[in-house]
Formats: sequence, structure tokens, C-alpha cells
Amino acid sequence: MSGFEFLRGLRTEATTKIVLMVLDGIGGLPQTPDGKTELETAATPNLDALAARSSLGLTDPIGPGITPGSGPGHLALFGYDPLQYVIGRGVLEALGIAFPLEDHDLAARGNFCTVDAAGNLLDRRAGRIPTTECARLCAMLRQITLPGVQVFVEPVQDYRFVLVLRGAGLSSDLSETDPQRLGVPPLPAHPLAPEAAPTADLINEFVAQAQVILAGQHPANMLMLRGFSRHPQIPSFAQAYGLRPAAIAVYPMYRGLARLVGMDLVEPLGKTPADEFATLAAGWQDHDFFYVHIKGTDSAGEDGDFARKVSVVEEVDRALPALLALNPDVLMIGGDHSTPAVLKAHSWHPVPFLLYSRTCRPDAAAGFGERACAQGSLGRFPACLAMTLALAHAGRLTKFGA
Amino acid sequence: MSGFEFLRGLRTEATTKIVLMVLDGIGGLPQTPDGKTELETAATPNLDALAARSSLGLTDPIGPGITPGSGPGHLALFGYDPLQYVIGRGVLEALGIAFPLEDHDLAARGNFCTVDAAGNLLDRRAGRIPTTECARLCAMLRQITLPGVQVFVEPVQDYRFVLVLRGAGLSSDLSETDPQRLGVPPLPAHPLAPEAAPTADLINEFVAQAQVILAGQHPANMLMLRGFSRHPQIPSFAQAYGLRPAAIAVYPMYRGLARLVGMDLVEPLGKTPADEFATLAAGWQDHDFFYVHIKGTDSAGEDGDFARKVSVVEEVDRALPALLALNPDVLMIGGDHSTPAVLKAHSWHPVPFLLYSRTCRPDAAAGFGERACAQGSLGRFPACLAMTLALAHAGRLTKFGA
Repeated sequence: MSGFEFLRGLRTEATTKIVLMVLDGIGGLPQTPDGKTELETAATPNLDALAARSSLGLTDPIGPGITPGSGPGHLALFGYDPLQYVIGRGVLEALGIAFPLEDHDLAARGNFCTVDAAGNLLDRRAGRIPTTECARLCAMLRQITLPGVQVFVEPVQDYRFVLVLRGAGLSSDLSETDPQRLGVPPLPAHPLAPEAAPTADLINEFVAQAQVILAGQHPANMLMLRGFSRHPQIPSFAQAYGLRPAAIAVYPMYRGLARLVGMDLVEPLGKTPADEFATLAAGWQDHDFFYVHIKGTDSAGEDGDFARKVSVVEEVDRALPALLALNPDVLMIGGDHSTPAVLKAHSWHPVPFLLYSRTCRPDAAAGFGERACAQGSLGRFPACLAMTLALAHAGRLTKFGA
Repeated sequence: MSGFEFLRGLRTEATTKIVLMVLDGIGGLPQTPDGKTELETAATPNLDALAARSSLGLTDPIGPGITPGSGPGHLALFGYDPLQYVIGRGVLEALGIAFPLEDHDLAARGNFCTVDAAGNLLDRRAGRIPTTECARLCAMLRQITLPGVQVFVEPVQDYRFVLVLRGAGLSSDLSETDPQRLGVPPLPAHPLAPEAAPTADLINEFVAQAQVILAGQHPANMLMLRGFSRHPQIPSFAQAYGLRPAAIAVYPMYRGLARLVGMDLVEPLGKTPADEFATLAAGWQDHDFFYVHIKGTDSAGEDGDFARKVSVVEEVDRALPALLALNPDVLMIGGDHSTPAVLKAHSWHPVPFLLYSRTCRPDAAAGFGERACAQGSLGRFPACLAMTLALAHAGRLTKFGA
């Protein structure tokens, strides 16, 4: 019995509203062993007052010691076991540019590269051509036609692009064409299962046509394909929870992840947290679940900018009263992973989590921070259990057993 | 997907060094309800200062309420699910005397016993003969030869010995020969699977020859065999983690457990914690993972000697600066189980755990003890996840998903 089936069996009707605010990469580290983290440093009177009335905890998106990418980190918060619902690299790349992937699409990451006259690799990244050049080459490749499938070629950044094939019977069980070293030609795609042979033929035909089209170009006179993956078969939020979810996110990757689980994308009224909360208020009647994504915390962490990460948290705090004024039945504030500024990268550290509702058992914490959350009554728990907590506090789950 | 396969997929190269110090049986209990545990009682300025800069938690070696033996307790800390990688009794007994078990060896625990003229059991432990007598009898039994296999008979303690058969196709699917009651003869070994029949024949032939050899001895004129088990098929540390591990342990059981997972055994320069840390320093360049075993905490606990367990902890604390001076990238201090002096035995209580690294999130604890660990941000977690944490903090794992 899957977790979703179990929850479906307990589901009961309610008109309550749930908000999940994801402060991307919110978990941090102090700059010195006796210092405070970014979240602990930020002056956050509104978050602190909320924390005092909330239950706190620390989430593990994947598991202790495992650093999550944005995809699995979000799927976990959405309640999907990230080891069961694996999103392939090609699909993630497509989500990242908000490509409208359909159910049976096959996606791959593409690299433009440079080969010599004999076809051997000279540069696996084609001198890191600019994105404008990448877009020009992608437009040229759109003249490629393949039997029985639609072909989409979309630029991503620099030398990277996405290839999507749309049609029946496509398989992702293919070997990659990047040999991962220079002086040899790109590899053909091999089927890794018998039923993948027709798809391998299509991919190799695509590459053959591309080679002719790119032959006169320099330095990007060839391409390689990796991360073949299919749109994951994933239950929607409506199927899993009986919720009508909306996503308010500025960045394409997060809008793509939200669409993956069947959320309605709401166009943000602007890029600031205040704008996103205003968007939430404007659409408050139309949905009963709201995912609000704040990107700035992660960007600052990735840049190693401790002070900016602090100031993004403070900006969220200043805007928070507008969200609280909507009086959500359940408000969860968490993160998809940690991005400590001192590490300039995603990390494996557990992530601060807050749940407020009228039915929560308040921890009476002095504030919202890593150490307060480590003391919280929610304990340290897998992020993919957060949605079950939310449904419970939203009065959407009945008793198990009599 | 097993844990080891998952970790292998995330592995990345690093030159960092990890130390796992096992304070055997470190978890304790207070002598009165309002008292302190052994670890909390000990004056440990160095451990306390380290704890302030570390992340703390409590480990469950097997699971809540389950008292671990030394074998599963250690396997868990080494990252091996102790319910998946089960070490049989015979193998454990062989490890305990540092018998150099090979991959396909079959091991059994032996008891010398006393039978009457009709062959019925009078004493299942042969009057608890001294170890010297046990050794003399084992030497006599070494004249036994069996077709196609090598036979090893090694004394353990008192009436207990180890039998090891070495050869191809041996099976451990055998019933035990100890009837567990008096007045009846020892049982023949029965095959519990068809392919075990030849091994059962070998064992019964061994017992028949032994009966003849022991016939004139008193009181140990017969033997019984239990816990038939094979060397477990277990991934090595190198395979599981890509680490070059060294073990610094004084007692044979722990050296045997370390060899089981492919650690290099380093001869300790002496028996004290200070000697073991000096051994660590001497071999610091040769490995990237170091298991250091401190036995005294467990011995004192088993003896019910609260004060001595406290003083062993204090001895470790005094020696600790020599270990810290090596500046390990990751230092974990934990235990394979609890051995509260008030219980004079291993127990099921969760075990204090400390992880220090430059990338840890310090809990700012006032000291290293059971209650401080219960407040720690690592929470209460299965001991077999500790190695994943270590690899993460050692920069040896990449991100999962993009």
C-alpha cells in the first residue's frame, strides 16, 4: 500500500486552506562555530511571533547526509518520496526552462561540442558558446524531422540545450552519447532494453541530421545527448490529496516542478516576496492549497552572500503580515534543502520547518531558527511527511481504525 | 536500491580523513533517578569543548528497545544494516579469538560436555573446565581429519571452543547438536536444506571421531556444536564507501569485526587510549578512515563499576588533545551500545553520539552526555546512518538530483 493510497482511504471533505511557503535553501550554517546561522541572524519579529505559536522541527528532504537537488527537495516537500519518484536529468532540464512537457515525452540534455575533421572530440562544451549562439543553433536544428514523433529543440544556457521527442512508445533506456573524454567521437545511443531499440534509432537519426546541419558551424559543429528521461508517472495533488493546488513561483524550474504534480500556475504580480503574497491574496478563493516559492534565500546562499541571505529572510518577514491576514488554516514554512552561505552550495544539513494552525501544539520557541527547530516537537523527520501533517491540521483526514 | 548502491552513485573523490572513535558501551544510566549517568558524571573538559562545536544526537544501533551484541552494534556504526548483515554465532565466536576466517569458512561454537556410559548428558558444560584444559582437549581434537576439508579447533574460554571447517560447498543450514536438556544424548546435526547434507555428514563424522578421542577424558568426555554459520558476504569499506580504512583496537573481537569489513588492522602501540591515539598519529598518512576502539567503558559497565567507567571516560578525555591535534576532517564519537553500570550488561538505551567537522551545525551544548545528546540537532537516528553523515561532512558525496 503506497502512502498516497493510505491517505486516500482517510480523506475527508473540508473547505480549509493550506499554504506551503518554501524558502529555497533556507537551512544555513554559522560563520564561526559559536556564531548564528543566516536565519538566526535575521531580525524577524513576525516569524518569531509566529514560531512561538507554532510547532517546529527539522526536515530531511532525502535522508541524513544526502544533499538534495531542487527537484527531489521539492518533491519531498510536496509529499512524494524522492527515491521513488525520480526525475531524470533531461526532464529536469526541460522543467528548468518551463518547457510544457507532456505525459509520454522523452527529454534529453544536449551539449554543443567541437569535433575535428575526423569527428573526434576537441571540446566537450564548444568553447562555452554564449546562449544567443546556442539559441541560433537550436533554431537551425528545428528543421530536423523524424518519423512518427515531434521534435523540440530548446536552448538552455551557454552550450546547453534540451531535446524533447513527443510520440507513442518512446523509451528512456538509452546509453548516453557523451564519451566523457576527448580524442574520440561521440558515441551512438544504444538501447539498454530491447523495447528501446526504435527510440535509439530515432535519437541516432536526429544526431546524424544534426551533424550535417552543424558541419559548417564553429566551434559548435556537433552535439551530444545525456540524461534521457521520461516525464515521470506521478500522481497529481488532486489524486494524492484531493486538493486544488496553486503555485506562485517566479523561476521556471519551480513552476515546472509544480506543474509536474498538477498544480495550477498563477502568474506572480511581481518578483518580491510582497508581490508573491499579493498574488496569493488575489487568488485566495480559487484554490485550497498554495505553494509559494521564495528563491532569493538560495541564490544568496549559492553566491556565498551571508548578509544578502539574511536580508532576504528579513524581506520575507516584513511582508509576512499580508500572508497571515489571509488567516490560512495551515501555514507551513520550510525549505527544499539547506544552502549555507559558507558552503556556497546546497548541503545535506536538515532544514528548519514551522507548522502553524489552530490545532498545532505550540512549542513556545523564542524564534524561528535552526537551533529552535532542533528543539521543536515535530522532531527531525522526513520532509515527505509534511503534507500528511498539513492535511491533518486542515481537518482533511479521518481516524484510522475504530 | 540498497543503501550502498545509492551511496556509490553519489560518491566523489576527496582526500579528507574521518575518525570514528567507539567508546564501547558508552551509554549509561544514573544511579538514582535524579542523578547523572557515567558520561555526565565524568569531568571531561576536552570532550565538553568539542561538544560545544559539534552536532549531537542519540543513535539506535538496532532499534528502540533492542539490546545489541557487540557484533551488530559495531556493524551498525560501520554503516551495515545489522538486520540485513547478520553475523552467525559461530562466526562471532571465531572473530572473538581473532581466528583468520576466510570467505567460505563454516564456523560453529563448541561446548565440551559430560555424558554417562549410555551417552546421555550429565553436564552440558563439563563442570566448566578451565581454559587450559579446554586448550589441551582442542589440541587433541586437531588429529581429526575429514575428507576434502581442513579442520581447525581453537579454544575460547572455559568449556567453549570454536570449530572451523574450510573447503568448497559447505553449508550452515544445519540443526544444532545440543538438545538443551540433560538425560538424553547429544543430537546428530541434520541438514535443514538438501544441499547441506554433505556438510551434515562431515559434522557428524567430526563428532564421531571426537567421541572416540574424548572417551577417556573426564569430565569433558563429549562435545556439542551450535551456531553453524558462514563468513558473511559483506561489502568491504572500500567497496561500500571508497575509503581506505584502518582499525586500531586492542581486543580480538573488535579486530575481527574490523577485518570482516575489510579494514587494515594496525597494531596498537599499547593498551591505553593515549597509546591508541599515538598509534593513530603514527599511521595518519596511510589511511583515510580510522576506527579507534576503546574497550574500558564497556568492561567497567559490565562489571557494574560506575566509578571505573567514569574514570575511563576521563582517561579518554585527557588523551583527546593528541587526537584533535591531527585535525581530522570528521570526528565521530559514539558507542556500539549502552552498558549502564547499574545494569551490569549491554542495554537497549540509545547511545550518545557526537559529530565534529568544519561543516557541522554546532548545537552549542554545554557538554557531552546523554541529555545533551537528546537535545542535539542530529536527533535520534539509526546508527547505520552515521557513515553517510561522515561521508557528507568529508565532502565525499555529491548532490542527489539537480
